[in-house]
Amino acid sequence: MNLILLFQDDFVDDSGRVRLQGRRLKHVIEVHRAASGDELRVGVLGGRIGIGKITQLDRSLLEMTVQLDRMPPPPLPATVILALPRPKVLRRVLRSISAMGVKRIILLNAFRVEKSFWQSPFLNEASVREQMVLGLEQAVDTMLPKVLLRPLFKPFVEDELPGIIKGTLSFAAHPGAAAPCPRDVGRAVTLAVGPEGGFIPYEIDLLASRGFTPITVGDRILSVETAVPALLSRLF
Amino acid sequence: MNLILLFQDDFVDDSGRVRLQGRRLKHVIEVHRAASGDELRVGVLGGRIGIGKITQLDRSLLEMTVQLDRMPPPPLPATVILALPRPKVLRRVLRSISAMGVKRIILLNAFRVEKSFWQSPFLNEASVREQMVLGLEQAVDTMLPKVLLRPLFKPFVEDELPGIIKGTLSFAAHPGAAAPCPRDVGRAVTLAVGPEGGFIPYEIDLLASRGFTPITVGDRILSVETAVPALLSRLF
Repeated sequence: MNLILLFQDDFVDDSGRVRLQGRRLKHVIEVHRAASGDELRVGVLGGRIGIGKITQLDRSLLEMTVQLDRMPPPPLPATVILALPRPKVLRRVLRSISAMGVKRIILLNAFRVEKSFWQSPFLNEASVREQMVLGLEQAVDTMLPKVLLRPLFKPFVEDELPGIIKGTLSFAAHPGAAAPCPRDVGRAVTLAVGPEGGFIPYEIDLLASRGFTPITVGDRILSVETAVPALLSRLF
Repeated sequence: MNLILLFQDDFVDDSGRVRLQGRRLKHVIEVHRAASGDELRVGVLGGRIGIGKITQLDRSLLEMTVQLDRMPPPPLPATVILALPRPKVLRRVLRSISAMGVKRIILLNAFRVEKSFWQSPFLNEASVREQMVLGLEQAVDTMLPKVLLRPLFKPFVEDELPGIIKGTLSFAAHPGAAAPCPRDVGRAVTLAVGPEGGFIPYEIDLLASRGFTPITVGDRILSVETAVPALLSRLF
């Protein structure tokens, strides 16, 4: 937790006084090992970043006065469309995508996505949000990504995707694709990443017909968790 | 498992007959859903890649005849020096680094590495090897990385590191560093990645005095799991 993310409910009044308990209090005590008078990096969800000076700290409560003086880092101009990964992987990927600064994530069905993944409790709004908050706290950011769930591949690609990719370069990560992932594109990107086992030919063809270029990050087939940071880091 | 990694003990004779049971058999049945006559991608540890044609398959045994006709993908010319991460993270990072093609991994102590991490059972040779095998199976590779454990920072950096970095570009990933991670360097690299919370100034200074350039992948502080693929993908 390189930043403590604050929510409107944490503020006691309009003068920047904040009270925390629970997970964040525990973290400040056990990991930061902070004491009264110490300063912590804080940020308000959806808003600015600054410093919180601890005015009171014990096992049950942390109180601090915060001063917010700068904007979070700029977002990555990327929409990531992810064939829904298995639940444990989903959690980690949500954290890493959020940490890298992506602000729109679309979880999409694909032929090789196991149907049971759509029933996972990790897909509920609170759980998805929890992982993204962890990603923001890691990366020192305050702007939560938007997440869309799209359990139908074809209608999404045919009806919704054209609007999403407008004005962006659009790529589909696909092992064995002819084109290497381009570097430092300097433009907004829509990046589609397939499931374990990859998109099936029908899916890649449909994406290609909508303007997606199949790309790879080399000869090696990477897991979603490894591929996503590798792709984003090369594109931007 | 995009490749089934075979070991010398799996071979029944010199004609390429192989017998599998246990984890790999289970995977072929449950994930590949293969049947007798099917062909699977296989590779021999430290050697070539090819096809295994299943001649017999039931719940207790898989037998196949393998033909090995091509080399694994070229290695990434990188040595990764990793401040020992927490055990669960270590397992995932070993998989992803191996999948990306790194062939030398050095697990190093640092001030912010918790001492207990060095006692983890995940650090024993069999456990480390298991994760790297999973990485190779993911990435369709057969060449196992070498892993060195170095529980003393200063003697390692002063005595051993000069020999390791000879002829390579050497970088230390460090949030807040002035230089961005360079792209597509086209040379061998030694990459040092700090612990959660980063290297301390003394450590970064010592690395810098030995020729390491501190670099970042942007304004954001990334977890080790996200940073390593992001860095490697940008460097190569």
